[in-house]
Amino acid sequence: MSTPARTRSFDWEDPLATASRATTLSGGEFLMAIAAGSIPQSPVARALGFTLSEVGDGSAVFTVEPAEYHYNPIGLVHGGLAATVLDSAMACAVQSKLPAGKAYTTLELKINLVRAITLRSGPLRAEGKLIHAGSRVATSEGRLVDAAGRLYAHGTTTCMIFDTHAE
Amino acid sequence: MSTPARTRSFDWEDPLATASRATTLSGGEFLMAIAAGSIPQSPVARALGFTLSEVGDGSAVFTVEPAEYHYNPIGLVHGGLAATVLDSAMACAVQSKLPAGKAYTTLELKINLVRAITLRSGPLRAEGKLIHAGSRVATSEGRLVDAAGRLYAHGTTTCMIFDTHAE
Amino acid sequence: MSTPARTRSFDWEDPLATASRATTLSGGEFLMAIAAGSIPQSPVARALGFTLSEVGDGSAVFTVEPAEYHYNPIGLVHGGLAATVLDSAMACAVQSKLPAGKAYTTLELKINLVRAITLRSGPLRAEGKLIHAGSRVATSEGRLVDAAGRLYAHGTTTCMIFDTHAE
Amino acid sequence: MSTPARTRSFDWEDPLATASRATTLSGGEFLMAIAAGSIPQSPVARALGFTLSEVGDGSAVFTVEPAEYHYNPIGLVHGGLAATVLDSAMACAVQSKLPAGKAYTTLELKINLVRAITLRSGPLRAEGKLIHAGSRVATSEGRLVDAAGRLYAHGTTTCMIFDTHAE
Repeated sequence: MSTPARTRSFDWEDPLATASRATTLSGGEFLMAIAAGSIPQSPVARALGFTLSEVGDGSAVFTVEPAEYHYNPIGLVHGGLAATVLDSAMACAVQSKLPAGKAYTTLELKINLVRAITLRSGPLRAEGKLIHAGSRVATSEGRLVDAAGRLYAHGTTTCMIFDTHAE
Repeated sequence: MSTPARTRSFDWEDPLATASRATTLSGGEFLMAIAAGSIPQSPVARALGFTLSEVGDGSAVFTVEPAEYHYNPIGLVHGGLAATVLDSAMACAVQSKLPAGKAYTTLELKINLVRAITLRSGPLRAEGKLIHAGSRVATSEGRLVDAAGRLYAHGTTTCMIFDTHAE
Repeated sequence: MSTPARTRSFDWEDPLATASRATTLSGGEFLMAIAAGSIPQSPVARALGFTLSEVGDGSAVFTVEPAEYHYNPIGLVHGGLAATVLDSAMACAVQSKLPAGKAYTTLELKINLVRAITLRSGPLRAEGKLIHAGSRVATSEGRLVDAAGRLYAHGTTTCMIFDTHAE
Repeated sequence: MSTPARTRSFDWEDPLATASRATTLSGGEFLMAIAAGSIPQSPVARALGFTLSEVGDGSAVFTVEPAEYHYNPIGLVHGGLAATVLDSAMACAVQSKLPAGKAYTTLELKINLVRAITLRSGPLRAEGKLIHAGSRVATSEGRLVDAAGRLYAHGTTTCMIFDTHAE
């Protein structure tokens, strides 16, 4: 095959080494260390080319630029990309509020796909924001928007909170 | 870094060339050609290492083996993998019923994650099955199970059906 | 039975007469006529004691005061009440944007219940707000809050838009 | 008003008296007592005219006959009726598996409405079935069908399980 070279390589760091750092930091400290580059981005983020770029108190933003290797068989970026970056943004919005000693797991997520994503969409931001923070359950929402603020997808998630020592 | 080499390369085929074949085949014919290897698996399937392996009349199965490059920052396979393969399986269950000249788009998907996925889970099957096929809207469900039949995730989706010529 | 009298009566107007008025008005006009009392509240609103009280451009508010007859068998207000008033608020947020000649149907709704509703909750507001308005699909979200702004439930919905004449 | 009389009366039993019985019985015993009539149907079931009619090991069925007082303002049965009876059926499918001393709360539910419900639909069955029963989280699904087996709505739910004494 001549043009273009449809091949991609990526590398990643040991995820269990990274995860062990999560147990001594608060959720917000852990995520800010990833955004700042002192803890590596996750393997799946390397695989799909997305990045945790901003962390707030109850919020998180991931960025991704749609590429040909994100495409599905019917000529559009696969909905799984939107689901994955929104899942990340919504879960990290919850994690950003957790003190050290608390962890979370995602119970469910629901994603609406409202506009087709293609190479022409340009860089996208997945913005996660906390809705409800209870002692055992938290919910958050997310929006996937382009540089002009156009909405491509949105979602909500439900997370369960637990003590890391009790698990 | 000595052990192990945490790097991966993959390649893919032009997705728009593949998508153009979708317009002349029925949904089932198109998907069976992918499963049989005469139409290439999608770019995102190559990126994440999953495969369309079975197509029925109102059903589809994707297979994936969890790998370290699927991990999130907290030491587990990212929920986006389950969302992506279930989205594929559920959407293809709908597509498998479409005659030539009809196309679909996914409006929304909802995924429950009921068991953590790790390297030890082994190969997983995402089984999609049609629930309702209307003239303009179809819904389907999916289950993600391991070789022993243990359930890891399940979901539902809503697709809109339209004429390819009318778009 | 002595105290208290656990009985309730309600009445309603012919819903098909009301619905016929929907075909000549825009969605916003129709809903504002209900909120103003010149078109009757729906039968189900009479049955469950909720009221369309505010209509905006892409928004709608229903109010309800939890009562003993809303209870489930385990001592709390049934989640179906939150689902019903949020469904109404979210659907009417969509309907408020429709011109005359367009109608909608709800394809799906998803509701998170984040705080138990009881008699002590006091009057609740279900606030619906449009997220995305496309030519064929619209999505909206809703929040159920008490007088102090505490959140009890939230949700999203997907609606399909169509021409009333084409049906 | 001459024809027909659009009024309805219903009564109910003290829901807190009923709920207190839930603490000494297993979930299945409690629900079977309701289905058998020795514990009253819930207030909301009386308000909307639905009935818990069958209880299995991980399943539950509610029945309802659509009536004019279930209608929304656009000439169809309100989606909240489907949401309410499916919520009941899915939650009771979870509850049917709980031993005495365990209780549950519904975290979220998602409902697809695939066919309009009208007076002509006739009696409907909401069939709930357990999908996943974990120690702290359970999920279930539901289908709303008519006497001919035609599907009107379907859904899934996520419930959290906890010890009644720990609350």
